[in-house]
Amino acid sequence: MNTTTVKAYGTPSADQDLNQMNIERREPTTKDIEIEIMYCGVCHSDLHTARNDWGFTTYPAVPGHEIVGKVTRVGSEVTKLKVGDYAAVGCLVGSCGTCSNCQKDLEQYCQNGWVGTYNSEDKYLGGMTYGGYSQKVVVEEHFVLKVPANLDLAATAPLLCAGITTWSPLRHWNVGKGTKVAVVGLGGLGHMAIKLAKGLGAEVTLFSRTPNKTQDAKDLGADSVIISTDEDQMNSVAGKFDVIIDTVPYVHDVNPYIATLSTSGTLVLVGYLGGLEPVLNTVPMIMGRKSVAASLIGGIAETQEMLDFCGKHNIVSDIEIIKMQDINNAYERMLKSDVKYRFVIDMSSLQ
Amino acid sequence: MNTTTVKAYGTPSADQDLNQMNIERREPTTKDIEIEIMYCGVCHSDLHTARNDWGFTTYPAVPGHEIVGKVTRVGSEVTKLKVGDYAAVGCLVGSCGTCSNCQKDLEQYCQNGWVGTYNSEDKYLGGMTYGGYSQKVVVEEHFVLKVPANLDLAATAPLLCAGITTWSPLRHWNVGKGTKVAVVGLGGLGHMAIKLAKGLGAEVTLFSRTPNKTQDAKDLGADSVIISTDEDQMNSVAGKFDVIIDTVPYVHDVNPYIATLSTSGTLVLVGYLGGLEPVLNTVPMIMGRKSVAASLIGGIAETQEMLDFCGKHNIVSDIEIIKMQDINNAYERMLKSDVKYRFVIDMSSLQ
Ligand SMILES: [Zn+2]
Ligand SMILES: [Zn+2]
Ligand SMILES: [Zn+2]
Ligand SMILES: [Zn+2]
Repeated sequence: MNTTTVKAYGTPSADQDLNQMNIERREPTTKDIEIEIMYCGVCHSDLHTARNDWGFTTYPAVPGHEIVGKVTRVGSEVTKLKVGDYAAVGCLVGSCGTCSNCQKDLEQYCQNGWVGTYNSEDKYLGGMTYGGYSQKVVVEEHFVLKVPANLDLAATAPLLCAGITTWSPLRHWNVGKGTKVAVVGLGGLGHMAIKLAKGLGAEVTLFSRTPNKTQDAKDLGADSVIISTDEDQMNSVAGKFDVIIDTVPYVHDVNPYIATLSTSGTLVLVGYLGGLEPVLNTVPMIMGRKSVAASLIGGIAETQEMLDFCGKHNIVSDIEIIKMQDINNAYERMLKSDVKYRFVIDMSSLQ
Repeated sequence: MNTTTVKAYGTPSADQDLNQMNIERREPTTKDIEIEIMYCGVCHSDLHTARNDWGFTTYPAVPGHEIVGKVTRVGSEVTKLKVGDYAAVGCLVGSCGTCSNCQKDLEQYCQNGWVGTYNSEDKYLGGMTYGGYSQKVVVEEHFVLKVPANLDLAATAPLLCAGITTWSPLRHWNVGKGTKVAVVGLGGLGHMAIKLAKGLGAEVTLFSRTPNKTQDAKDLGADSVIISTDEDQMNSVAGKFDVIIDTVPYVHDVNPYIATLSTSGTLVLVGYLGGLEPVLNTVPMIMGRKSVAASLIGGIAETQEMLDFCGKHNIVSDIEIIKMQDINNAYERMLKSDVKYRFVIDMSSLQ
């Protein structure tokens, strides 16, 4: 297969900084779209993959799955976009297309294994897929999204992972006007959850461990902030929330939040992979028909729905733009939660 | 308040057998129905309450909340039933009637505390409520159910707790034609879950730890039985079930069952009160948008719906009829799961 060499930023091993490297991109097939990447958001998964925190990184690794750019070439069968259009790519660049989940636009739960934008098997070139920390990407039309014309392109990038990851559970659990939503954690995911839930018409509360995020949360649209370490405040919202979007990425006690769910309410984990410790107590759950669920990104149709919704409601991420060369420092700052609320790489810095 | 003395079976302390005693029943108010109890099912909660296993029993305790009988007196404002009609009472005999859950026919989640049929505060006479191990009971009309004429009265009694406890989650999680349901545990709750899910048109599988329940499960209507200790069998149903009704009343590992949930599937605990150990792993949950939920009995309207459904589909419990005097022995047999599948007391034995 013919390829084009493009510049990228990646790492050859878990213990090395990211640095400039060259990677190959396939010539677009008849169903492919080639995108010149303008902006790429920086997700915690990027960092975890670069450093092999989950133990399944194949090197070299080129992260990045919050991609916004401009179409430079399209295959002959492509109808969704044309050269010069703005385009976006999220966490998924492939799935089987035939399983019952793919047929239901749930590519993120493809029963034959979806293809991640990075660190997944590349079915075209062999080896692994390389992500958005690069000049160009070539993606099957089905997995390319349209970008609403009115949105700031850089601030749109984080919608492709942080946005859809919170949008999908908000939609699946029917959040809308009259729904009471709480968000646990105010990072990239949490700040999008507040904006999107608010956009959907819900009453939105942020759970925070410290009072110093109160003004920020309200500026993002939260109606109120509950300090989770304050027992009186927690008691004041007992039985209140229909849906809680828990974005905390590390092990934490969810039982105090269960107490704040309304009857038939659901707490949805979107950030944490692992065992629920301390153990989940079923007593408060049975006494109110409560659920604990987990949710992974979203499907392609749902991602487009979210982008269109954001276009209509003028919702984008709060971002800090960095140069590609700043990525290693950005990772260090992310580990200290020192970003409001997402780094986005201006990819022109890689030229 | 005027009262009538009736014979009952109860215990004065956690470490004594149940024995005959006298209790008082209030004169029916204008809104009350007096029922001569003909049959009373024997629920595990009866045993746990008698023996103070949960630590909140007030003595003397008279258990029994699967009550079927005949109306002997009605208050002047009662319209639901008349003298001579068959009537049933389940786990609830009161709730506030005004909270948002009561207004939605979710009396079992009353925000001001529902009144249990036994071992709850008796708002009429003071002291605690006494259950169905007695000759008569006086209950507010709202909490009295009608019994379909075609059903065997004794075998109907267990529907009032075991039936509604499994019916409510089956309905809440939309089980019907085309749904794949699994049931964990084949006791009083489990055997009703199989019958009701089958009645609703679902494909039903029983999870059992040993093969010796296979024929019984199929006789009850299960389409298949999976031996949960057999890894190959468990793998054969990976990702299969939309809803799992987990009736196991003691601590157990739910993670192997999570693996058998379909995308967006829900495991509902109806039997276990306590911490989920080993810890619940969120990874398989996030990879399939799966939920773990818990559910408590059901509301009054829903209980009537279930009874009417059972009438229409000729569904009752499989029972073994005992005399009131056999109750202590029956408890011992229940602890050994030596009953198919519910003891029902013929209350004429108490005359
Ligand atoms: Zn991401
Ligand atoms: Zn698929
Ligand atoms: Zn019961
Ligand atoms: Zn109430």
